Amino acid sequence: LSLLREEIAEQPAALARLLEEETAAVDALAAAIRRRRPRFVLIASRGTSENAARYAQHLFGWMNGLPVAHAMPALTTLYDTPPRLDRSLVLGISQSGVSPDVVGVVEEGRRQGQLTAAITNDEASPLAGVADHVISLRAGQERSVAATKTFTATLGALAALATAVAGLEERRAELDRMPAALARQLDLAASAGPAVAAARAWSHVVVIGRGPNLATAYEAALKIRELSGVVAEGYSPAGFRHGPIAVVGAGYPALAFAPAGPAREAVVELLAELRRRGGVAIVVAEDDAPVVSGDLWLPLVPVPEWLSPLVAAVPAQLLAAGLAEQRGVDVDAPFGLTKVTATR
Amino acid sequence: LSLLREEIAEQPAALARLLEEETAAVDALAAAIRRRRPRFVLIASRGTSENAARYAQHLFGWMNGLPVAHAMPALTTLYDTPPRLDRSLVLGISQSGVSPDVVGVVEEGRRQGQLTAAITNDEASPLAGVADHVISLRAGQERSVAATKTFTATLGALAALATAVAGLEERRAELDRMPAALARQLDLAASAGPAVAAARAWSHVVVIGRGPNLATAYEAALKIRELSGVVAEGYSPAGFRHGPIAVVGAGYPALAFAPAGPAREAVVELLAELRRRGGVAIVVAEDDAPVVSGDLWLPLVPVPEWLSPLVAAVPAQLLAAGLAEQRGVDVDAPFGLTKVTATR
Repeated sequence: LSLLREEIAEQPAALARLLEEETAAVDALAAAIRRRRPRFVLIASRGTSENAARYAQHLFGWMNGLPVAHAMPALTTLYDTPPRLDRSLVLGISQSGVSPDVVGVVEEGRRQGQLTAAITNDEASPLAGVADHVISLRAGQERSVAATKTFTATLGALAALATAVAGLEERRAELDRMPAALARQLDLAASAGPAVAAARAWSHVVVIGRGPNLATAYEAALKIRELSGVVAEGYSPAGFRHGPIAVVGAGYPALAFAPAGPAREAVVELLAELRRRGGVAIVVAEDDAPVVSGDLWLPLVPVPEWLSPLVAAVPAQLLAAGLAEQRGVDVDAPFGLTKVTATR
Repeated sequence: LSLLREEIAEQPAALARLLEEETAAVDALAAAIRRRRPRFVLIASRGTSENAARYAQHLFGWMNGLPVAHAMPALTTLYDTPPRLDRSLVLGISQSGVSPDVVGVVEEGRRQGQLTAAITNDEASPLAGVADHVISLRAGQERSVAATKTFTATLGALAALATAVAGLEERRAELDRMPAALARQLDLAASAGPAVAAARAWSHVVVIGRGPNLATAYEAALKIRELSGVVAEGYSPAGFRHGPIAVVGAGYPALAFAPAGPAREAVVELLAELRRRGGVAIVVAEDDAPVVSGDLWLPLVPVPEWLSPLVAAVPAQLLAAGLAEQRGVDVDAPFGLTKVTATR
């Protein structure tokens, strides 16, 4: 078994460990947020962590009313014109905690007296060293280049933080049921087989999601891209309609996330439009309601919409892994990628 | 001549008109910003305007120390959980001023007593109606579906606003020289010919830019995509290194923006890495210094780096238009797209 497949399988245990062992760290940060009442959150992140940050943008807005800005690290590390920060939370998200651009933004936040925090899988990393608060992912070492268990653990950490800030016990209870849901989602693994077969001929694919699952769409696209070499891009239905839809013609493939909830309708409407243009789709959903005739359904374990990215990540990972294996890619170190990417 | 080609040619005049006629509106908004001192800017935008918003994110940070957050309209229009805003500027950017999601975010900003502003080409639009301050693009009606003159005019409006807030006369003088620079850039039009020929076989392309020209990269990708049907995506060098670089193999094409300035180095380093992987590039720059052996150079009129997106947009437009014409696309209404896209 590849390290990648092993780490995908470890996700329920990794998430359970995070939820059990990091409660004190999460609560301490949540208490600081309630005390200092930041007006917005500035997040620094790259790659898979940037996709998790996209989930944070939805979640902090939806549950905490907090606007989220994604940092442009170049302003701090290249131009030496960091943003003037006031009443903000500066949050760095990085599996390795090493990339100088992410560290630089959090360091600058501290210099300006802002509340700072890090979410990382290495509590001895430079990123952890510059932040007031550290949430450690406790996912165990991730050896495959493509991040999987650290992604879902990061989503879990963000969900735990948002619920702690909001003080919503019921939502926390929903979150605590997610390791079991993740395990059930992995049991549905076989269902990725037909999708992998259908995706055999892809040279490119567009990946669609909305609300909490815009993050899922971006991460699925990144996973497919880095593992299989297929050109894949994530879009919201609105973003895709504003121009990029032009490229959809006969046989153009899409992957869409459509769990039940307010975000589903716009995704379903776009799927119908893609069909009219001759496109074909694989649809991830709890039931086949969003499936347009001729499209393929990938089943999802039913969970509340706000937590659906945690389970929806799994079919995306399995599809990406299956595609890569089919193409003979070394899935643990695809295309000469290295685990730690240091950028400034 | 297509409407698209006409509108591309109108850009120097459109920009000159904006800079002449909107000074009072820009100054009034700048005065309100200096008085109310927002802690961050929340921008709502879609498509081409979202790419202009990316320029605003660099520019407001670099010149004004202002963090920029891009709105997730769904939080306001779909979930009814708008962010709690305090000491913010809420800015809607939309050529048509019609899209309900953009209007909804600005309307909510007003409801919460925030400073609100609109940048639009239609001062009678719903968006203009809900904003305290309106900067009218004065680009004249844009009839081609693909936005060109309204894009560069929007960049000009943002540059005028940032300089007015900063009160930097010298920078304003640099901006006032841009209509002439744009005209000179159009005179270099013939140089797009070899690039169009080189791009003949593209089925996909990655577009790279950094700092102010991350916006250019996104917009070039959108223009190529909506006009020619080629799958094109914009990336920062750092973003591309964190995973997506996996797909680069022999013959993989890139388009890179590398004007002189602090952002150039990271782009040049990435170009060398792409070459090592067998990729080929078209490089937009004032001189051929960033060109790796075997790559193609598209010349750029020399202007200060912060204003380079205004001229760099032109070779991108000409390349996209040329590619589309070569493929027999109706460039004024490609692939059944409509001028106004209303999304919620």
